[in-house]
Amino acid sequence: MDRFSVTYRIRADDDADANVRAEAIAIEDTLEIPRDVVPSGYIEDVVLGNVQSVTAKGNGVWTANIGYHIDAVGRELPQLLNVILGNASILRGVKAVNLIPNDDLRTRFSGPRFGAAGLRKLTGRASGGYVCPVIKPQGSTSETLAQLCYLTAVAGADIIKEDHGLANQDAAPFQERVKACASAVHQANQERAGQGDTSRALYFANIGGHGDQVREFAYRAKDAGAGGLLVIPGLFGFDAINRLAQDPDLDLPIMAHPSHLGPYVLSPDHGYGHGMLFGQLMRLAGADISVFPNYGGRFGFTQEECTQIVEACRDQKGIGPAILPSPGGGMSVERLPDMAQHYGEDCVYLLGGSLLRYGDKIGDAIREMRVGVGGTNA
Amino acid sequence: MDRFSVTYRIRADDDADANVRAEAIAIEDTLEIPRDVVPSGYIEDVVLGNVQSVTAKGNGVWTANIGYHIDAVGRELPQLLNVILGNASILRGVKAVNLIPNDDLRTRFSGPRFGAAGLRKLTGRASGGYVCPVIKPQGSTSETLAQLCYLTAVAGADIIKEDHGLANQDAAPFQERVKACASAVHQANQERAGQGDTSRALYFANIGGHGDQVREFAYRAKDAGAGGLLVIPGLFGFDAINRLAQDPDLDLPIMAHPSHLGPYVLSPDHGYGHGMLFGQLMRLAGADISVFPNYGGRFGFTQEECTQIVEACRDQKGIGPAILPSPGGGMSVERLPDMAQHYGEDCVYLLGGSLLRYGDKIGDAIREMRVGVGGTNA
Repeated sequence: MDRFSVTYRIRADDDADANVRAEAIAIEDTLEIPRDVVPSGYIEDVVLGNVQSVTAKGNGVWTANIGYHIDAVGRELPQLLNVILGNASILRGVKAVNLIPNDDLRTRFSGPRFGAAGLRKLTGRASGGYVCPVIKPQGSTSETLAQLCYLTAVAGADIIKEDHGLANQDAAPFQERVKACASAVHQANQERAGQGDTSRALYFANIGGHGDQVREFAYRAKDAGAGGLLVIPGLFGFDAINRLAQDPDLDLPIMAHPSHLGPYVLSPDHGYGHGMLFGQLMRLAGADISVFPNYGGRFGFTQEECTQIVEACRDQKGIGPAILPSPGGGMSVERLPDMAQHYGEDCVYLLGGSLLRYGDKIGDAIREMRVGVGGTNA
Repeated sequence: MDRFSVTYRIRADDDADANVRAEAIAIEDTLEIPRDVVPSGYIEDVVLGNVQSVTAKGNGVWTANIGYHIDAVGRELPQLLNVILGNASILRGVKAVNLIPNDDLRTRFSGPRFGAAGLRKLTGRASGGYVCPVIKPQGSTSETLAQLCYLTAVAGADIIKEDHGLANQDAAPFQERVKACASAVHQANQERAGQGDTSRALYFANIGGHGDQVREFAYRAKDAGAGGLLVIPGLFGFDAINRLAQDPDLDLPIMAHPSHLGPYVLSPDHGYGHGMLFGQLMRLAGADISVFPNYGGRFGFTQEECTQIVEACRDQKGIGPAILPSPGGGMSVERLPDMAQHYGEDCVYLLGGSLLRYGDKIGDAIREMRVGVGGTNA
């Protein structure tokens, strides 16, 4: 295939209108000029998007496949998003729902560094779901947060995720906090090893700071001993993930957080399909773990939407290795066995605020989670 | 005021439900833990969001004002967006529609470097609207694009804006293209000066490249002689604008482009109000010019939505100096006089693809635009 393609869900009046709209998207996301002034030759033949099919789906909805040549993209992820859904994101009734990569796309955007298989090695957790407490709330001191890290890590957590609201505030500045937390997790891991545990907890630091400090903060986290990074593409851009994932010296797994991205999926008529955004695009960008709100929690994702995300994370034909879905948002220890039934073992099970109810006995909650999600050490 | 506040439009069943939802937003965007485990003292009193009012608006809609302390933000723009509409962006029926700054917010986010008044000085255009051709399409050579720059600049354009799809593709790589275009505009400005013209064209280069190259590309553009920068916050994050605006050595005006941001405004129930996103937030981030799709073009913004944007750009109580709105998207020379009537002279009038119909006579179109938007030299 000389083009990768994107499937759009389009609202239209009839077949003719659907075709007009599909052609409009193909122009809008590449040349953005009226069709009658498109220069012939290279620009028309290669750079211009190419409508490959338009299919009626009923109820005023059509789908259209549009092919794009890698020349319209270049080598940088921001321009890829411009081509997939740049100006077309502002057209009414246009939603991107599927990305079909070609070799050009796979070559230039190779996806995650570790993926699901890599996380098994890094954690030493041979089977079962991953237990992932979220350390919070912001406003706590670094010392308090580090203590939560220690208690959850020593009790057997696989991944200790910082709350996405722990940025660089005065109560617990990034540098101080990450050093304290990484050190606490290191201490817990040593104690686990001393008891013959062959698995270990990875501490994922949330990249706070300014937009142009992502790399600097990532290296500060690594130097402090963090085992992974939490990145928010809705605030820092999807390429922030990609640049960290492609950095061979950094070599840390990345967890993507959905904050600020809700409007891209909540409308049936605009933005991205759930599987495309939280599965395909996170994976293309290089996330090893994709966090999203679980169905039945306080956010309104349906079970089907969550299944779409999981399938895109694990799709054998996706970009790079399969990655780990990570449902969260208003979960409880009690719900975990049911969730484990639904999501299976290649999944990072987030548990946040409700863990705080356990107080000093938070380790008990981690051990209950472990039972809920099953699994053995390596 | 010890808190800045955000007004949210909330869908709810009744007053009680609206209050519950408002409290949920206040928690979600700050602590993200159940209310019953919020630690007393500093975290509850200062860091937690504070519901100030909830007002019924009819038809299942309420508005809520929620106050936030700057301590929940820190000093970085990404975390500010986390507080304004981070996880709450994923809640159904929650839309942020107004930002009410306090002194803390103004101190930490000072807004644009130049604003509307600064652009008058930089261009030497004492009155009248700004004529702004868009150079395109991608796939053209740097030479072709530079020729368009020259022809429009010498004919009297005020701002030459690169198409937002001109990134760093092989057909016209950033460095080569920006050098050629800046040089062409410089040549045209010299000819204008030679004819006694006291105004000059500013060439705005589109920041392509990777997410962590924004500053590098900005300086490359400056070194090549660009007079301004086009930045796409929907791809690079809003802080990309802020960091450039706050850089005293860079000292270039910034135009913000709406690509990839459509889903934030197209739904009545999610994301941001038009005025808040394209007016308040662009201005807070530091954009001197905010591009948005004009009503009646191929995008579906209404006249009222465009008016909200313009009012937020010009609001005397906004953050930093007033900025210039810049309507575009399917405009034509013929529509300009009507537009000038509506938007007035502190406005950048974009004209893109339709200019290409003029071919070598594109200068005629620029002169027609000048008549349409009025104005004199300094």
